[in-house]
Amino acid sequence: MPIGMAPITQVLFSKFFKSSAKGHPWINRDRFVLSNGHGCALQYIIAHLLGYDLSMDDLKAFRQLDSKTPGHPEAGHHTPMVECTTGPLGQGISNAVGLAIAEANAAATFNKPGFELFNNKTYAFLGDGCLQEGISSEACSLAGHLKLGNLICIYDDNHISIDGDTACSFTEDVEQRYLAYDWHVISVNDGDKDFEGMYKALEEAQKVTDKPTLIRLKTTIGFGSLNQGGAATHGAPLKADDIAQLKKKFGLDPEQFFHVPQEVYDEYHKIQQRGAGYQKEWDSLFEQYKGKFPTEHAELARRISGKLPDGWEKALPVYSPSDSAVATRKLSETALSKLAAALPELLGGSADLTGSNLTRWSDAVDFQNPTSKLGDYSGRYIRYGVREHAMGAIMNGLHAYGLHIPTSGTFLNFVSYAIGAVRLSALSNFRVIWVATHDSIGLGEDGPTHQPVETGMALRAIPNLNFMRPADGNEVSAMYKVAIEAIKTPSVIALSRQNLPQLEGSTIEKASKGGYVLKEVQNADITLVATGSEVAIARDAAAELEKKGIKARLVSLPCFKVFDDQSLEYRKSVLPSGAPILSVEAYTTLGWHKYAHVQHGLNTFGASAPAPQVYKKFKLEPVPIAEKAEKVIDYYKKQGTPLVSPIELAAAFE
Amino acid sequence: MPIGMAPITQVLFSKFFKSSAKGHPWINRDRFVLSNGHGCALQYIIAHLLGYDLSMDDLKAFRQLDSKTPGHPEAGHHTPMVECTTGPLGQGISNAVGLAIAEANAAATFNKPGFELFNNKTYAFLGDGCLQEGISSEACSLAGHLKLGNLICIYDDNHISIDGDTACSFTEDVEQRYLAYDWHVISVNDGDKDFEGMYKALEEAQKVTDKPTLIRLKTTIGFGSLNQGGAATHGAPLKADDIAQLKKKFGLDPEQFFHVPQEVYDEYHKIQQRGAGYQKEWDSLFEQYKGKFPTEHAELARRISGKLPDGWEKALPVYSPSDSAVATRKLSETALSKLAAALPELLGGSADLTGSNLTRWSDAVDFQNPTSKLGDYSGRYIRYGVREHAMGAIMNGLHAYGLHIPTSGTFLNFVSYAIGAVRLSALSNFRVIWVATHDSIGLGEDGPTHQPVETGMALRAIPNLNFMRPADGNEVSAMYKVAIEAIKTPSVIALSRQNLPQLEGSTIEKASKGGYVLKEVQNADITLVATGSEVAIARDAAAELEKKGIKARLVSLPCFKVFDDQSLEYRKSVLPSGAPILSVEAYTTLGWHKYAHVQHGLNTFGASAPAPQVYKKFKLEPVPIAEKAEKVIDYYKKQGTPLVSPIELAAAFE
Ligand SMILES: [Ca+2]
Ligand SMILES: [Ca+2]
Repeated sequence: MPIGMAPITQVLFSKFFKSSAKGHPWINRDRFVLSNGHGCALQYIIAHLLGYDLSMDDLKAFRQLDSKTPGHPEAGHHTPMVECTTGPLGQGISNAVGLAIAEANAAATFNKPGFELFNNKTYAFLGDGCLQEGISSEACSLAGHLKLGNLICIYDDNHISIDGDTACSFTEDVEQRYLAYDWHVISVNDGDKDFEGMYKALEEAQKVTDKPTLIRLKTTIGFGSLNQGGAATHGAPLKADDIAQLKKKFGLDPEQFFHVPQEVYDEYHKIQQRGAGYQKEWDSLFEQYKGKFPTEHAELARRISGKLPDGWEKALPVYSPSDSAVATRKLSETALSKLAAALPELLGGSADLTGSNLTRWSDAVDFQNPTSKLGDYSGRYIRYGVREHAMGAIMNGLHAYGLHIPTSGTFLNFVSYAIGAVRLSALSNFRVIWVATHDSIGLGEDGPTHQPVETGMALRAIPNLNFMRPADGNEVSAMYKVAIEAIKTPSVIALSRQNLPQLEGSTIEKASKGGYVLKEVQNADITLVATGSEVAIARDAAAELEKKGIKARLVSLPCFKVFDDQSLEYRKSVLPSGAPILSVEAYTTLGWHKYAHVQHGLNTFGASAPAPQVYKKFKLEPVPIAEKAEKVIDYYKKQGTPLVSPIELAAAFE
Repeated sequence: MPIGMAPITQVLFSKFFKSSAKGHPWINRDRFVLSNGHGCALQYIIAHLLGYDLSMDDLKAFRQLDSKTPGHPEAGHHTPMVECTTGPLGQGISNAVGLAIAEANAAATFNKPGFELFNNKTYAFLGDGCLQEGISSEACSLAGHLKLGNLICIYDDNHISIDGDTACSFTEDVEQRYLAYDWHVISVNDGDKDFEGMYKALEEAQKVTDKPTLIRLKTTIGFGSLNQGGAATHGAPLKADDIAQLKKKFGLDPEQFFHVPQEVYDEYHKIQQRGAGYQKEWDSLFEQYKGKFPTEHAELARRISGKLPDGWEKALPVYSPSDSAVATRKLSETALSKLAAALPELLGGSADLTGSNLTRWSDAVDFQNPTSKLGDYSGRYIRYGVREHAMGAIMNGLHAYGLHIPTSGTFLNFVSYAIGAVRLSALSNFRVIWVATHDSIGLGEDGPTHQPVETGMALRAIPNLNFMRPADGNEVSAMYKVAIEAIKTPSVIALSRQNLPQLEGSTIEKASKGGYVLKEVQNADITLVATGSEVAIARDAAAELEKKGIKARLVSLPCFKVFDDQSLEYRKSVLPSGAPILSVEAYTTLGWHKYAHVQHGLNTFGASAPAPQVYKKFKLEPVPIAEKAEKVIDYYKKQGTPLVSPIELAAAFE
């Protein structure tokens, strides 16, 4: 890829791309996303030439430990010009749709007559692999629907993928498909040598402002190499003699390695100057904007800085035990409605489950092209359609743009359709928020196809991801507080379909620690630890035990990761040694051993029936839980040794 | 959906569909897949009318506990006519592609002049949601490429999804997109009343044998109800008075519930007879086939019965410790090559990573339409393209057809793109096999975007799924043996990119138990338990400990689920009480507490660098592991109490 796409890269960056000065995060810079991220050598070289903080030594450290030039572009760490983490195919093009949405929203929100603060383009390169992945179909169908005229994608049509000629699996008519999505499609038949054709295509794409553009660029993989056009050049590096003849062919000295001719540096120095000029003009425009629109200026400056509005957290609702039982998805709706008013950067949405996820605040405007008459680009609610995976990747793009906190909605079970994007949010340190309702067998009749039993633990297993399962209104508020303040961590908030009581002892402050004691008892016989809808069930199990004179502590653990981040002292106070600990959750028990000596849960798929019957079937009710607790207490009494909590045990080896 | 699609359902089943007699699993029956599975009431009613084992009482138990009529169609349990589990959107249409591939392969393999044993059609209903999901784009692009003329899909174009009018998110030109995929597209503009149009469309579709067909059927959601055409009728049941007027409108008695007029039963009785007739004709043809083609007959009869060929398992390669170190992906290639010869039902493939997954045996023929000149329909290797999610769902369809054992290939990290399909394999009790190479940080330079650290545990958390991580050649053979014999369980075999030594003490028999002792020591100070590439590292750590006079047992645990299925006595013999147990795996430690007192692993993302450097960075080397083992031993010595193994502890509450 790096060689085949070198000509268009040269045309794009020398003639069109508005870079920032030395990689400054200028908010109106053009964005570039390399969806075929395996070709990242190309992107690193361009960043180097553009004068960004990527030295020749960095390029030499390509794919070496802790370098700035890893095997695929990793955002959120320390490589300049990498807007989003790409390489997993289909992600980058979908990120680009998010970047384009963010720009359109920023422009509609902040631009004023004479003050076009936002007009940047998003460019993406993509290959056959990206086009085959379903996520890109989802994202590009939505991009066409939204008429994102600021998005320009360049398809490296080299007729080769890893298995060989694309004839073996990919023979669809890509141009016709993108026309069906209502994109503008341009074809360049010689991407190896027709520089004028490439220039004209990019020029035409600039002028198409009511549709995204796909430029289909026919290229020859490994152009100029001895094996050009063959699959052999896809994954494997070129041989030494091939590199030598290739360099000669293009007028370079075959004896020099990691060498850029001075004339190329000089040429790119001019391009750097041009970028610096754009940025300077913009700074001056923004200064004038301050005079004319001081409120908007202050707001935009705040959002660029990433600072949250003072006192935003006061918007979070607070509940007391006398408040009525409400589904946490409904409590989430209340919280989101308050937060939407307090945080203009919140950009919501749902994958066609708005009425179930309850993600849309009442006065929300849909983010739509105004010609649709269904909303406009200043709208802050995205109708993603049934496209969970694209939604995840688009949220990554929205975050990457730098002005938004994206939230989304789907059933928890269908976050699994999007795991490929979710893990990249976590790897990239991107704050995106999933509102994941219908979070267990408690959804009832829809049955095991829709009931997550493994998804919670799968999400907890992803590094740097908050999987949250609040138990009541205060915990819902706490989870939003944590998610919004976790500027380098994505969150998935799992919410119930069914009503849950407001708990005695829950507060936003306590729940914000990820785990806390709901009910303390001296000389307890056992600690019950639960999450979400099972906390009230565990509470009732504790009451059953109390009837028999058995003392049970009650702990709520809405977020493993946030709890793990607390001090050892605190964690030991919540889950102390001494008495046995029994976990209760309507999910797989795998993973709960980390906190509890014994686990109560659901190690099979669920069942289709009214929720209370499903809970009964799987013994997730107070009486069977109390019975199990008694067994646990007896077991450890017979053991007769002082009991070490899993927290304390693990700490011995940290 | 059930109401809007009732007219076409009537036309399809009364005029075209070749059902079997009373739901007999006749191998050449037409297949029906309801991709919009939330409308399953319609499918259940048809099954009832076709005389399948689904009574009026079953219909009355709709969405009730342990009924045969759950909220979405669940295959592999006990509901007749449900070929595949559907409901999660996009799955069913992709399953249908698998069913169509299976038929094409069966026909090319077994049909002879005058003996068209296989000629069934696969029909699928799908809605807007299915079309928006990326998985369906992947599957339908592939179906077009493969020119599957036996596939007929009917798109319920009702302009409504859960969020309301499809205008809010889904405005692409579906017909044009399917033309781009090289499908035959037919439009019926009045799916409510134009029975002749529907008949003609289905008739035309029968005649198109060189392409899949999409019939776009414009329907009115809730046709005949007071709210017809509105989103309100999508999820919510109709009100009583609405049902009454609707029944009246269509000439039914509004006072009767769960009532089928006798004339309808009579009509369907004739349809049942017709189906029985087709089946009888086929049985007679198959009997004649026996006379002319006894070998093929025996083979097909065997495959229909699901019995594996006698002695197939002798094909599995056996290794000894003196054999050279080889990557398990390469050992898998050897095993697959032998198995492909021994098991004609094996139907392989890869998502465009053939050269990396090593999934294609040397004399394999590609499954391709013969006009491609790249293979033919008797080929047993599918070029899936970069379409992991569709690959998972297509494998479910291949399994469901009843004649194949599908295997696939991708990187373990990208199995996560397909989790939506994988969990349905497990829920459906479908034997499909994922060959998942590049299974850890051991893949090296590609970096954290490609290095699974959480995927293994996420897969272990799915009920009824074998996640397997073999450590050497014998374990690879054992995992294939288990996966092929696990007729109701899917398997994911995780394989290394890097070379691994052949272990002293491994055998197919022992490894087939999911976990076993590689090295026994009397009065051990510690047990080290590991999987895959870390077993040899743990072995070397044990050697380090031995130098200091510390006695370490060594356990390999290639498959949690298979190990969990062994007797308690056996499991306790492998991971006994007495000495502490330390786990070693280059994945998240979450979940390992189930077997080990202390865990050594990787609770962050990996890194891009040569593999040995990445292993070093994360202390996954013999010396640091031995050091940790010493700490563990010291800790428990200080505790001074007899140590209970997690296996024994859990057993106390089973
Ligand atoms: Ca390509
Ligand atoms: Ca619809």
